[in-house]
Amino acid sequence: MSGIETLQNSFETYFNHRHFPISPATLYNPLEEFLSNSGKRIRPVLCLMGNELFGEISDDAYHLAAAVELFHNFSLVHDDIMDKAPLRRGKPTVHSAHGESTALLGGDVMMVVAYDYINKVNAKYIKDVIRLFNQTAKEVCEGQQLDMDFEKLDLVSMDDYLHMISQKTSVLLAASLQLGAIVGGASDNNQQHIYSFGKNLGIAFQIQDDYLDAFGDPEKFGKQVGGDIKSNKKTFLMIHALATANSDELDLLNQLMRENPSDKVEKVLDIFKACGIDKWANELKESYLQKALSDLDEIAVSKVRKEPLMQLANYLISRDK
Amino acid sequence: MSGIETLQNSFETYFNHRHFPISPATLYNPLEEFLSNSGKRIRPVLCLMGNELFGEISDDAYHLAAAVELFHNFSLVHDDIMDKAPLRRGKPTVHSAHGESTALLGGDVMMVVAYDYINKVNAKYIKDVIRLFNQTAKEVCEGQQLDMDFEKLDLVSMDDYLHMISQKTSVLLAASLQLGAIVGGASDNNQQHIYSFGKNLGIAFQIQDDYLDAFGDPEKFGKQVGGDIKSNKKTFLMIHALATANSDELDLLNQLMRENPSDKVEKVLDIFKACGIDKWANELKESYLQKALSDLDEIAVSKVRKEPLMQLANYLISRDK
Repeated sequence: MSGIETLQNSFETYFNHRHFPISPATLYNPLEEFLSNSGKRIRPVLCLMGNELFGEISDDAYHLAAAVELFHNFSLVHDDIMDKAPLRRGKPTVHSAHGESTALLGGDVMMVVAYDYINKVNAKYIKDVIRLFNQTAKEVCEGQQLDMDFEKLDLVSMDDYLHMISQKTSVLLAASLQLGAIVGGASDNNQQHIYSFGKNLGIAFQIQDDYLDAFGDPEKFGKQVGGDIKSNKKTFLMIHALATANSDELDLLNQLMRENPSDKVEKVLDIFKACGIDKWANELKESYLQKALSDLDEIAVSKVRKEPLMQLANYLISRDK
Repeated sequence: MSGIETLQNSFETYFNHRHFPISPATLYNPLEEFLSNSGKRIRPVLCLMGNELFGEISDDAYHLAAAVELFHNFSLVHDDIMDKAPLRRGKPTVHSAHGESTALLGGDVMMVVAYDYINKVNAKYIKDVIRLFNQTAKEVCEGQQLDMDFEKLDLVSMDDYLHMISQKTSVLLAASLQLGAIVGGASDNNQQHIYSFGKNLGIAFQIQDDYLDAFGDPEKFGKQVGGDIKSNKKTFLMIHALATANSDELDLLNQLMRENPSDKVEKVLDIFKACGIDKWANELKESYLQKALSDLDEIAVSKVRKEPLMQLANYLISRDK
């Protein structure tokens, strides 16, 4: 069984080459550059782990790990255009460095090349792979659309937020695991459990993300605490606060969001604490983590094979940055 | 053997249903609307013809006809964002009616749904289909990038223009035919000839398009003649004029493009005529049409099976609007 770092390194070795033609350089060089400025490669690692759960890691798992990494990067390039984001992983985004048109086209080509990697997979798996990959791709786009739609609303229900954030982030984590499992020859039942594990883990991860933005230790967190609060972002925490605050707290919350005073973060955090949002968020996160672990429990393979996924769950959820 | 109109109608019957989920309606309804405002469905018709050349039209050919139509529409939606085009087929473009972000995401989803249709194809053909489809998709994106790159250049060589315009328009026509041929069980050799037929026909079609913009009959053409001249667009005609005009004509051409006087179209057309550009363009078009027909000749099926493609070539090339 391979740990996170081992798999990150093996994936890097496999992935570290040119993915696009040489010409036109105006289209392809920005993409090579963007891909080489790597993130944590969580999704490819999940794909390899989903595969190793059922046997030795196969070439097909590496092809699919590359496909999910390209899809993830495609979605980042296009999301950055929509969000007008100037920076990504500390460097200028594709559209801010090379123009929106090249970023748009470049994202399109990245998606096509993701299907090039899918097309390398053993023919007997390819239809199942494309079915899951496409379903996931559509859900990720839907999540992004819902996120934009929600920005225009004053109030979003917890159910709607949970649906949106699952589509936007969790389903790709879940699908990465299942894709690895498919080409590992996993049964339908095992595939469903590994998918569900990934989806619940993804939700726990997102709750953690929202929690850290409000209650993280600024020194460890690496970015300014309270960014979500400053921009009135709807998060697990804010949606629950708006649903549970008493009328005085609610008036104050709405006033703070409207007027954006300099002590807004501090005052919103006071309300969060008064409403017990920190405790609530930790319990919610814990409940999704438990759901995930119980899914993992249901997978019919020996316990030792599941260790890397347990380790990964702890790594993602216990992080403080 | 089925004629153009028969195939347009059969495709319409197959294609006339919902292609996207119901929700989120903010993402999917604009796409349904865009697809229903149909063009001539040339690419799906080519796919069906490429299939019928080798036997009875199969379900697989319809699936691929839908895939190329969705891919074509995806590229229109994204191109319209890049070109900041307000109208398409007489109606507001997706981005001008629903915002750039929805058009961007909507294009992405259309491409994914194109692969849903590809995934319906008989497993024995799927790898060849994806290989050709992906190669073509990349070339179309490259063509669009080169087109944007060329806008920033003063001078573009005929070879470079021919390469760009082939990628941007001809390869998808060629691939539509070959995709139909693949699922019709055509040999590699026949596949290459049908592809080459489509590519050369596409170039002839583009020359015709450039010609009509300059020399078309305004009453039949349906849009203002001289649009390309007004916007200093590099076309087959303009590139050849810049390469063959004498120094006086060249000075005048450059001055007209710089100063945009009210009689610019008229004066540029005078230079085109003095340089014999109209005759040259017709001859060039004719030479590509002949290349296309000689490719068709090489395909090892009975002559009667080729009739619809002869008819289509005449329809595309003899058109005056």
